[in-house]
Amino acid sequence: MGSALILNRESELFHKLNWSCDNGIYLAIGDHQFLITDGRYTTEARENIPQEVEVVESKDLIKKARELLLKYRVKKLTIDPTGWNPLQYRKLGEITTLQPVPNYSQKERICKTPEELEFIRQSAKENREAFKKFLEIVEPHWEEFELAYRFKEILTNRGRRELSFEPIVAVEENSAKPHARLTTRRLEPGEILLLDAGIKVAGYCSDRTRTISTDPENWERGLSDSKKQTFSDPLKQKVYNLVLEAQLRAIEGIKVGVPLKEIDKIARETISQGGFGDYFVHGLGHGVGIEIHELPIVNPRSPHRVEEGMVFTIEPGIYLPGKFGVRIEDMVIVTHSGEVEIV
Amino acid sequence: MGSALILNRESELFHKLNWSCDNGIYLAIGDHQFLITDGRYTTEARENIPQEVEVVESKDLIKKARELLLKYRVKKLTIDPTGWNPLQYRKLGEITTLQPVPNYSQKERICKTPEELEFIRQSAKENREAFKKFLEIVEPHWEEFELAYRFKEILTNRGRRELSFEPIVAVEENSAKPHARLTTRRLEPGEILLLDAGIKVAGYCSDRTRTISTDPENWERGLSDSKKQTFSDPLKQKVYNLVLEAQLRAIEGIKVGVPLKEIDKIARETISQGGFGDYFVHGLGHGVGIEIHELPIVNPRSPHRVEEGMVFTIEPGIYLPGKFGVRIEDMVIVTHSGEVEIV
Repeated sequence: MGSALILNRESELFHKLNWSCDNGIYLAIGDHQFLITDGRYTTEARENIPQEVEVVESKDLIKKARELLLKYRVKKLTIDPTGWNPLQYRKLGEITTLQPVPNYSQKERICKTPEELEFIRQSAKENREAFKKFLEIVEPHWEEFELAYRFKEILTNRGRRELSFEPIVAVEENSAKPHARLTTRRLEPGEILLLDAGIKVAGYCSDRTRTISTDPENWERGLSDSKKQTFSDPLKQKVYNLVLEAQLRAIEGIKVGVPLKEIDKIARETISQGGFGDYFVHGLGHGVGIEIHELPIVNPRSPHRVEEGMVFTIEPGIYLPGKFGVRIEDMVIVTHSGEVEIV
Repeated sequence: MGSALILNRESELFHKLNWSCDNGIYLAIGDHQFLITDGRYTTEARENIPQEVEVVESKDLIKKARELLLKYRVKKLTIDPTGWNPLQYRKLGEITTLQPVPNYSQKERICKTPEELEFIRQSAKENREAFKKFLEIVEPHWEEFELAYRFKEILTNRGRRELSFEPIVAVEENSAKPHARLTTRRLEPGEILLLDAGIKVAGYCSDRTRTISTDPENWERGLSDSKKQTFSDPLKQKVYNLVLEAQLRAIEGIKVGVPLKEIDKIARETISQGGFGDYFVHGLGHGVGIEIHELPIVNPRSPHRVEEGMVFTIEPGIYLPGKFGVRIEDMVIVTHSGEVEIV
């Protein structure tokens, strides 16, 4: 045998097997495919993974991988060096020539199949519905803890659906922290409520952020997850409008072939021209798929161009420390016919 | 400067700083201590970590670590090779001599301070209370999803307290899988309900398993989290009694200086002599602290002996595929005066 491929992260196993566990190695040697895992997972693996993949039980996965590499006389092994520690890497390198490809699996997954896009579409749809339902039940004076708990109850359908990440629920000054942790801060009418959440459907993630005005008249007519928000505070309205303008302009710029750093630039320049350039402190977006953060990168140093099958977020933000923050995030699907779909 | 220490896992940062984030490097060079992290976390870090640790902001943590190692002319760097990938490891190794110590931080943490033991005691206490409260509200016919959801509601106090791991809630034949996933299986009277859960208090984990008989007469007088359980099914009673005997005997064997593999052996022989040796498919226990699984190991290959300040689980189990499983787990604290405390 000449060459082989080895993978070990859960997301990488899931991509190959449509099933995963937290202790496994996927090994493809020519036409032979193996899942090496320990006794806790072998039964479930055999029931769930494609028939052509052989389940191999072992307490020492690397040792078993070495045995298989030797048995099939593998000369070259493609491996993602960021997925292993130096001890594991050395053990594999002792018996075959390693061909390191950083982020191998993510690169393979950067353009999704039509079937994967459909799962992501469904994930985004159910996620949007959860935002709407939550805004129907939310009440003034709830703590961030309670807000997040009720939101998660709906997002997960009481634990029956997986989150793609721990939601961010932040009130007023806490929304100025891009990665706020929950506190006992209560939501009072007139304050900003920032919601950033996603779920998984068939293993595929969604991701969405809304910054919601809770002005008293909005409570009366029902809080809205629309991107049109009205704030009685002129500074909030100004910042909100600027973030929205940046998001919409960036989305308009998305076309097959355009470098993603150019998309980031459109949003960044819009915010800079509005006078808040120093307060947009992160990249414009990230790929979404089996993992909540994957390729492509959407920031000023992104090496990627827009391609058919890509899925990524567009999420500009402005964060005024001690005051408030605004972030607006949607996912963009680039279909296989090159259309740009906002979900 | 001669030597230095570098750490990067969240649990390792927490141990040094009593605060952590998911992107940080701790570097101790002689008396100088640094936390290198990115702009998202610097403010919160400065507010929370000990004053003597300097917060250094960087987008490229390894690059910044290299700069500091060069600036202070570090000749030897103690590093846990299991915590880094080969690319990171090589970059650090280019400018100083690496002294690899696998599981450095876990070894440092293997014996807890009295203050740490107190946190763990409190964590175990609140966890026990959650088991009791849940058994007061549980009702027949609930799905595993619903059982787990209600249990977690109590364990986390509606999201205000962290879990130490995703609880295992398994009914009857699902309890035969040591790491069962939740299903729509409903709990009917007379079936086994296995609960394995833990929480965090001040960053310290707890871990506990009960296998509960839900025979109709037990529902009437209230389900119990006691280790005394009565089953009308003679096989269940036999298996349960054997697991309990194994657990109690193992606990009795714990004394400062005794090898932990001997403790495992006591439980394993008890179960083997009872005729179920093939169905005890995992180690007897594991250390618990900042992480839910840490040193010491309690299995047939454990290199550790019982020491003052150690905390570990004793959790024998018997799993009869397609039928049911029984596991009984408590945490053991070995105090600094050498007493064995079950929590």
